Amino acid sequence: MKILVLHGPNLNMLGKREPDVYGVVTIEEINQMIRGHAEDIDADVEIEQFNSEGEIVSAIQGTHADAIVMNPGAYTHYSIAIRDAVAAVKLPTVEVHLSNIHAREEFRHKSVIAPVCAGQISGFGAVSYLLGMDAAKSIVEQAR
Amino acid sequence: MKILVLHGPNLNMLGKREPDVYGVVTIEEINQMIRGHAEDIDADVEIEQFNSEGEIVSAIQGTHADAIVMNPGAYTHYSIAIRDAVAAVKLPTVEVHLSNIHAREEFRHKSVIAPVCAGQISGFGAVSYLLGMDAAKSIVEQAR
Amino acid sequence: MKILVLHGPNLNMLGKREPDVYGVVTIEEINQMIRGHAEDIDADVEIEQFNSEGEIVSAIQGTHADAIVMNPGAYTHYSIAIRDAVAAVKLPTVEVHLSNIHAREEFRHKSVIAPVCAGQISGFGAVSYLLGMDAAKSIVEQAR
Amino acid sequence: MKILVLHGPNLNMLGKREPDVYGVVTIEEINQMIRGHAEDIDADVEIEQFNSEGEIVSAIQGTHADAIVMNPGAYTHYSIAIRDAVAAVKLPTVEVHLSNIHAREEFRHKSVIAPVCAGQISGFGAVSYLLGMDAAKSIVEQAR
Amino acid sequence: MKILVLHGPNLNMLGKREPDVYGVVTIEEINQMIRGHAEDIDADVEIEQFNSEGEIVSAIQGTHADAIVMNPGAYTHYSIAIRDAVAAVKLPTVEVHLSNIHAREEFRHKSVIAPVCAGQISGFGAVSYLLGMDAAKSIVEQAR
Amino acid sequence: MKILVLHGPNLNMLGKREPDVYGVVTIEEINQMIRGHAEDIDADVEIEQFNSEGEIVSAIQGTHADAIVMNPGAYTHYSIAIRDAVAAVKLPTVEVHLSNIHAREEFRHKSVIAPVCAGQISGFGAVSYLLGMDAAKSIVEQAR
Amino acid sequence: MKILVLHGPNLNMLGKREPDVYGVVTIEEINQMIRGHAEDIDADVEIEQFNSEGEIVSAIQGTHADAIVMNPGAYTHYSIAIRDAVAAVKLPTVEVHLSNIHAREEFRHKSVIAPVCAGQISGFGAVSYLLGMDAAKSIVEQAR
Amino acid sequence: MKILVLHGPNLNMLGKREPDVYGVVTIEEINQMIRGHAEDIDADVEIEQFNSEGEIVSAIQGTHADAIVMNPGAYTHYSIAIRDAVAAVKLPTVEVHLSNIHAREEFRHKSVIAPVCAGQISGFGAVSYLLGMDAAKSIVEQAR
Amino acid sequence: MKILVLHGPNLNMLGKREPDVYGVVTIEEINQMIRGHAEDIDADVEIEQFNSEGEIVSAIQGTHADAIVMNPGAYTHYSIAIRDAVAAVKLPTVEVHLSNIHAREEFRHKSVIAPVCAGQISGFGAVSYLLGMDAAKSIVEQAR
Amino acid sequence: MKILVLHGPNLNMLGKREPDVYGVVTIEEINQMIRGHAEDIDADVEIEQFNSEGEIVSAIQGTHADAIVMNPGAYTHYSIAIRDAVAAVKLPTVEVHLSNIHAREEFRHKSVIAPVCAGQISGFGAVSYLLGMDAAKSIVEQAR
Amino acid sequence: MKILVLHGPNLNMLGKREPDVYGVVTIEEINQMIRGHAEDIDADVEIEQFNSEGEIVSAIQGTHADAIVMNPGAYTHYSIAIRDAVAAVKLPTVEVHLSNIHAREEFRHKSVIAPVCAGQISGFGAVSYLLGMDAAKSIVEQAR
Amino acid sequence: MKILVLHGPNLNMLGKREPDVYGVVTIEEINQMIRGHAEDIDADVEIEQFNSEGEIVSAIQGTHADAIVMNPGAYTHYSIAIRDAVAAVKLPTVEVHLSNIHAREEFRHKSVIAPVCAGQISGFGAVSYLLGMDAAKSIVEQAR
Repeated sequence: MKILVLHGPNLNMLGKREPDVYGVVTIEEINQMIRGHAEDIDADVEIEQFNSEGEIVSAIQGTHADAIVMNPGAYTHYSIAIRDAVAAVKLPTVEVHLSNIHAREEFRHKSVIAPVCAGQISGFGAVSYLLGMDAAKSIVEQAR
Repeated sequence: MKILVLHGPNLNMLGKREPDVYGVVTIEEINQMIRGHAEDIDADVEIEQFNSEGEIVSAIQGTHADAIVMNPGAYTHYSIAIRDAVAAVKLPTVEVHLSNIHAREEFRHKSVIAPVCAGQISGFGAVSYLLGMDAAKSIVEQAR
Repeated sequence: MKILVLHGPNLNMLGKREPDVYGVVTIEEINQMIRGHAEDIDADVEIEQFNSEGEIVSAIQGTHADAIVMNPGAYTHYSIAIRDAVAAVKLPTVEVHLSNIHAREEFRHKSVIAPVCAGQISGFGAVSYLLGMDAAKSIVEQAR
Repeated sequence: MKILVLHGPNLNMLGKREPDVYGVVTIEEINQMIRGHAEDIDADVEIEQFNSEGEIVSAIQGTHADAIVMNPGAYTHYSIAIRDAVAAVKLPTVEVHLSNIHAREEFRHKSVIAPVCAGQISGFGAVSYLLGMDAAKSIVEQAR
Repeated sequence: MKILVLHGPNLNMLGKREPDVYGVVTIEEINQMIRGHAEDIDADVEIEQFNSEGEIVSAIQGTHADAIVMNPGAYTHYSIAIRDAVAAVKLPTVEVHLSNIHAREEFRHKSVIAPVCAGQISGFGAVSYLLGMDAAKSIVEQAR
Repeated sequence: MKILVLHGPNLNMLGKREPDVYGVVTIEEINQMIRGHAEDIDADVEIEQFNSEGEIVSAIQGTHADAIVMNPGAYTHYSIAIRDAVAAVKLPTVEVHLSNIHAREEFRHKSVIAPVCAGQISGFGAVSYLLGMDAAKSIVEQAR
Repeated sequence: MKILVLHGPNLNMLGKREPDVYGVVTIEEINQMIRGHAEDIDADVEIEQFNSEGEIVSAIQGTHADAIVMNPGAYTHYSIAIRDAVAAVKLPTVEVHLSNIHAREEFRHKSVIAPVCAGQISGFGAVSYLLGMDAAKSIVEQAR
Repeated sequence: MKILVLHGPNLNMLGKREPDVYGVVTIEEINQMIRGHAEDIDADVEIEQFNSEGEIVSAIQGTHADAIVMNPGAYTHYSIAIRDAVAAVKLPTVEVHLSNIHAREEFRHKSVIAPVCAGQISGFGAVSYLLGMDAAKSIVEQAR
Repeated sequence: MKILVLHGPNLNMLGKREPDVYGVVTIEEINQMIRGHAEDIDADVEIEQFNSEGEIVSAIQGTHADAIVMNPGAYTHYSIAIRDAVAAVKLPTVEVHLSNIHAREEFRHKSVIAPVCAGQISGFGAVSYLLGMDAAKSIVEQAR
Repeated sequence: MKILVLHGPNLNMLGKREPDVYGVVTIEEINQMIRGHAEDIDADVEIEQFNSEGEIVSAIQGTHADAIVMNPGAYTHYSIAIRDAVAAVKLPTVEVHLSNIHAREEFRHKSVIAPVCAGQISGFGAVSYLLGMDAAKSIVEQAR
Repeated sequence: MKILVLHGPNLNMLGKREPDVYGVVTIEEINQMIRGHAEDIDADVEIEQFNSEGEIVSAIQGTHADAIVMNPGAYTHYSIAIRDAVAAVKLPTVEVHLSNIHAREEFRHKSVIAPVCAGQISGFGAVSYLLGMDAAKSIVEQAR
Repeated sequence: MKILVLHGPNLNMLGKREPDVYGVVTIEEINQMIRGHAEDIDADVEIEQFNSEGEIVSAIQGTHADAIVMNPGAYTHYSIAIRDAVAAVKLPTVEVHLSNIHAREEFRHKSVIAPVCAGQISGFGAVSYLLGMDAAKSIVEQAR
């Protein structure tokens, strides 16, 4: 089983400049945790980060993974293009967020991508990704 | 470590009458999975189901657990009383949902309880509860 | 054929304190009319009144009737829990109102329960219940 | 006692082209039921169908009936002209709908005519008309 | 193959009084173009113009054409009656507009009729009708 | 100078059935006042009343008057067709209302026709028409 | 009979700097017309112009006139203080506007003062004042 | 004179867990103050706290007090059932709040119960209750 | 301790012209009550009434009182200038209203000034001022 | 004459994964039809597909075509950048859509690009492109 | 060249009572900076501060300056009267704000005055005024 | 001191095709002015223009400047990704616009980026950039 983990815009800045908001963990450390967890749950994992909406669309279109775990970052709230890409590839997709988007500014409560995802996990920091991988695995296994 | 698992209104009907929407798994089977998972992660678990908003408020107020995993059901969308109860007890609370509420009717997208919870897990059926317990454990451990 | 008639909050006050709004007929007199009409249409009838949302949810879940005639009172406008209960039991449910809710304050125009009911009868005083029983009977008979 | 039954636009198409939505009953068959029911409740009945808003306004203005049972069809949602006609003649008017308009598209939930009607009956197919006649009769009798 | 071309209210005034908005082409000249184009694409065409909403509803109900090309004019924005007529007859209907309604006043952006039409062509003057006929032909042919 | 006075739907009911709202003056008496005032200001006057939106559109299109004084009644609030007719004929049009529409229900505050009229006079009973005629005369004279 | 004519903010600038919008007539010329018309209709007139909301409130409170003709200018759209002053003195008040406020920017369509006025006259330039005086006179005379 | 003091949901948690928001005063201490003040103003007082909406409705229905001082807590913002109960018993009811609800989150600004209460006192901590009792007394005395 | 009591626009008209709405008590009588109550609670009081928003702003800026009790009248609903003045002087300010603003027209429910006040007292007639003085005193004393 | 045909995001997936929604026709087959139609109408055509908003902006800026036929895909609903690019180059642009966007989810009804386009063609599958080319040709020819 | 600098309500309180929000600089110090800068850019400057909306309107009407630099303070958000005054005098007007109004409460984001100003400078403290003077100078010079 | 000047989408078209809207000055000429002004204020400047949202995000992330002066163009109104990038790098950022965005279409009034910027300068053509550089310099100097 193969999982594509997608980090959206600005997630490459994690742990670099806003420790008070997103903690001191860097994206490299999160990726480390993701790779370690992939081994634990016996899955292959491919990790990518993009600032560009179009590149995220293309990455979704081009993947050969069995499931996607995606933190769309700011695009969560307006990228219908990413939504349509998820709908087009029909892969089980788990939307994850470091912070609890439902507890932040009003405009962050709405995810335009959620309606085409299997589910959403929000608010547990780097752990959101690991839970997302577990969820993805469970979906893929149930579908078999 | 002790976790209180709260099922909101109508969840006692699971698997009984709407298999096409919520699957054929009954609440008893979900509770079984929850208890099994509690053992796996070395936690005590207490499980309760209420149809009444006031009883959920009281259960939250009265718990001696270290964390709460709650599926508020329909109350998710309007019970400011439950929101205030969670805020009052200041226990880490994980909001879980069987279905992806962000993919259902517009009025189910909004959780008035979310802003006072640690995070939200939505869309993975019974697995949402298990992921919620993992999340709760991780929060409690980090806080130590 | 068996019909459950449910009176929502404050309907026990009928005829006691606001004769100018709801007439002088008391809930006991309405129940008398309901029982008389049940005999006329050859149906069993069970009548209950609750002030608590949770108890209405439980009553809906626990009924063995063939159909429900319900005046949800104030809960009409916000109780998604009652809506979900009606959806869960899948019994034909007729929503009735003494006054014409569409002619009152704006917030009373919307019924969050209506979308899962068979139909709505609003504005005919105690007669709304009797018409609702006729409607319920017609639905049950057509389904046979 | 005399009742005017008014069918709004497109109701002449009933049973002809959308059996899946409105059933296979034609308007002629409904009118048959209406006439039969009129006999049962000892009332005179006059039935008319119009596609034109203006003609409905004129029919309301010109009637000599004691009460009106009207299915305003699509005009339900925007015809303030029909609303004003009902208000002008001050006859008890019962608004009826074949389908449960509160369970359909959002824009069909609102009736601009309801605030000047005695009540609304919605969702019981052809039976809505018969219940409407019963309601009309009860109002006229109470007023005597 | 037979096409019904329907002109809504005020389209009979074309080219007569507002040349700066709708050009100097009269409805007679547009009808000429429509008839010429019908010959080109080997279709019968029937053309009607109505100021009255009810007459448009009746024309839609009564047609024996294979498809409708309709410019509902002002009724585009509020006539649920015309929408319901189109839905009732289930003929492929192409909505056309002389001007680009999406580039005009906000209230002209919304078409309540569009959701039941095959498609919409807006902004090309008289040419909108001709493209609409081509579109109608293509739909009818694909359905065969 | 010639003025077309148009009465919209239900104005033929004036003084007949709702004396408490619109006074006891009938449309015939208002028309009398209009004709008398026309003589006073040395104008020809043509008066028409329609319940049908389409007929009002046609009457506007077909007039040979120099100005229109129109009480669009209920159509004030939604008839874009009448608005477009006024815009098409480009005659100075004065919108008049018996009651002060800005002091009634919220939905009566908005006139979709006003943006294409010269001005609006609202609230002075039958006198609104006479003031409207004066206004129309002043506009026509200034334009000469 | 005595009429108070109130000009709101910026009306003292009339004819001075925006001839293309409000014409070349100055406030002095309008006042001249008002005084002339007062003589014609046999009324005393007192004219005042204020830029300050508070002064308009005080002027309304302090007047001994039988009626008020007021162009509240920009305050039309938000001065609840002026509205309350009009309601407090209970004098028949006619709201007048030079331009047709219902044909201008959206925010100018709404008058918060209108609901407590007898009526509104809008769009006839300086003539609006004269019509307003006629209307005021008619109201005062009818009340006698 | 007898006053019923009602505390809504979560008010039993006062002073226990959120001292920074609601101060360190417990509900027992507030009740002490209320009882002391009752003596001062020569009134009988009965105090109750409920987490359940239905129990608050029943308490209002069943009271024999002359007036109610109620802090509806979270139910302030959505409990139409409590509103209807207050309207039904027709007792003078004073709505009180510890914190200034108009200075908190947007959703706390609106009280659905306020329109049927005599008045509202908000923002003075425990003192709000005492002022509410004074207000209640004044209303009862004036009514005598 | 010194309290500034501010009456907003139109409050000088109290008891003069709208006895049915605001009672027959005049502002002089209210001021009498305020002065009497000031003596009772051992406070100095200064009372001012302004129709002008700017003068209220200046009065707030210039006061040497320890607290303000203000009935902003109509300005309650839109005067951000008064709000900013209250915020600037940082004096404890109690907002009072004679009538229950939350039970009146929708636009009177919102106070733009409330978020910077200590609290709000609404609905008790002249007594609102006296309760406001008590509240102000309690705040000042607690702050010492 | 030269036409630039632009396909927006995800259109490269056509016919690959969602045959039930967009049909089985691939983008290559559509391009084939476009090229064939270009020959028929004697036009040069250049076809490009981009997932990236910025690349679409650049393609519009850089084209030497006489007209653009563009299916902006998901960007239709939020890309003001593409809107501004169309406005900047001032080339006649025809907006086309495979499905009828006005019959899909509410958020797809609005095109932020439409106000700067010549017109919109929506709902005819691949034929939308061909009609768009015809429309573009007609506009270019009329402008000569 | 002469510039009128206008300070709106409460700006006279700068540096006096809210140093944490607006800094410790007083209005006198800002005026000093403005005068110094005027010399630097070779301009005459006149500075005024008003708490009253009407006085600001009058000041704008009466100025003989070539340009206005105005901080309308709270009036920014609702004073259509000031907007109309700016529009009437047709002087280039630069709107300035000490704080970044677009980063504060939602209601401060909207300026009703902006649409008639040359531009807006917001967020740079006292420097906003100096930049505003530079901008004003550049506009006046370009117009020559 | 080093300033990064960022031009958003379509700004490379300046002076090329819409002289009536944005003037005849090209981006090269603006850049010339920017470089000249940088010398005047003794600052290093780096200038970049991007059509792609993702590239703007990356440029903000990668800069070594002390401050950013950015005209986000169309992205101003929806790019939360750019907003988050500005928030992440925590550099003082001045938002500039050539035209006064608050005087254009409603949707251009809102900047989603403004809340994380130091301030906004809008409406002064190329001069907006120069004022923005002055503002940036002043912020950087004050922070030292």
